[in-house]
Amino acid sequence: MARTAGSHSDITGPRVAQAALQLFARHGYAAVSMRQIAAEVGVQAGALYNYTPDKQSLLFDLMRGHMDELLAARANAATPRDPMARLEDFTRFHIRFHLERPDAVFVSYMELRNLTAGNFATIEGLRRAYEDELEGILREGVQAGLFAVADTKITTLAVIAMLTGVTTWYRAGGRLSVAQVETIYWDMVRKAVSA
Amino acid sequence: MARTAGSHSDITGPRVAQAALQLFARHGYAAVSMRQIAAEVGVQAGALYNYTPDKQSLLFDLMRGHMDELLAARANAATPRDPMARLEDFTRFHIRFHLERPDAVFVSYMELRNLTAGNFATIEGLRRAYEDELEGILREGVQAGLFAVADTKITTLAVIAMLTGVTTWYRAGGRLSVAQVETIYWDMVRKAVSA
Repeated sequence: MARTAGSHSDITGPRVAQAALQLFARHGYAAVSMRQIAAEVGVQAGALYNYTPDKQSLLFDLMRGHMDELLAARANAATPRDPMARLEDFTRFHIRFHLERPDAVFVSYMELRNLTAGNFATIEGLRRAYEDELEGILREGVQAGLFAVADTKITTLAVIAMLTGVTTWYRAGGRLSVAQVETIYWDMVRKAVSA
Repeated sequence: MARTAGSHSDITGPRVAQAALQLFARHGYAAVSMRQIAAEVGVQAGALYNYTPDKQSLLFDLMRGHMDELLAARANAATPRDPMARLEDFTRFHIRFHLERPDAVFVSYMELRNLTAGNFATIEGLRRAYEDELEGILREGVQAGLFAVADTKITTLAVIAMLTGVTTWYRAGGRLSVAQVETIYWDMVRKAVSA
């Protein structure tokens, strides 16, 4: 159903972002045209430019939005002071947050190659800010004698890759609840870094 | 430089596969045309059909080839009998094998969505055969009282995700050699599963 350009602009913006995310996740950024995104939303191709200057901006906004949401959710979490409790909180948070957004996770990983150099640097900076929290927890735990970690940077990347991997196999309604999955992964993370 | 269809067929086949892999990794399967692949190889578009019936077959052959190579390399490895030594061997093997093939790893993960149902089932079967070796090692280690693992299936997937993640950040010539990376990851894997 076609809509008049500019109508419902308050709800059309999020619908454009949602349609772009789904199409990028299904077909890949390079294979999706602005025309396809417009058709999915139900607006004329020209009307799309009321919401975004181009496809690169759409991709960048999706990836930045994903990272902003992640960092904001983390900033709002009441994090415990003890490194062990903080690591458990981070582990459970990471699994829950990413399991709720499999398309955004997939696009954020897969389409890094399609960002312009400047946009890539911005996303990398946000990603690093998130990783820095985990690395800080590991460093504190090492100083407190709780953790034994040969290389806090590598361990940070290894833990994040392990936890994010849940999005590739978890299916809601399967044999394990999210809480059970969190507990199994927390057990592995705890043992992997413990002194 | 254009070549006559069918000439050098013994070397053109691998060159077609190599060109397809690079283009799929750079742009995504859906965005790459048979014409582009032919241009990259330096043959007429029509000549490509001497080597592959269609683009889906090209993708499937790449992904199956990757899994066949992985399973063959594993089958040829002289694996120790002790579960702890076997787990270390598997860990180091997985990192080395995947670090040597970042494009194939990326395409194999990213383009699962573009396989036909039948081709997907075949690739999943090969992937499961590989995972089964690791799960078998974990089960043996649990029975021997060496490992404490709540869920051998989930631990298998978690360890593989963690190890494969190396391909997203490792750069040759950086501060760590492959052997050093292997040792850091082996330390984490060993601790994560140990009793």
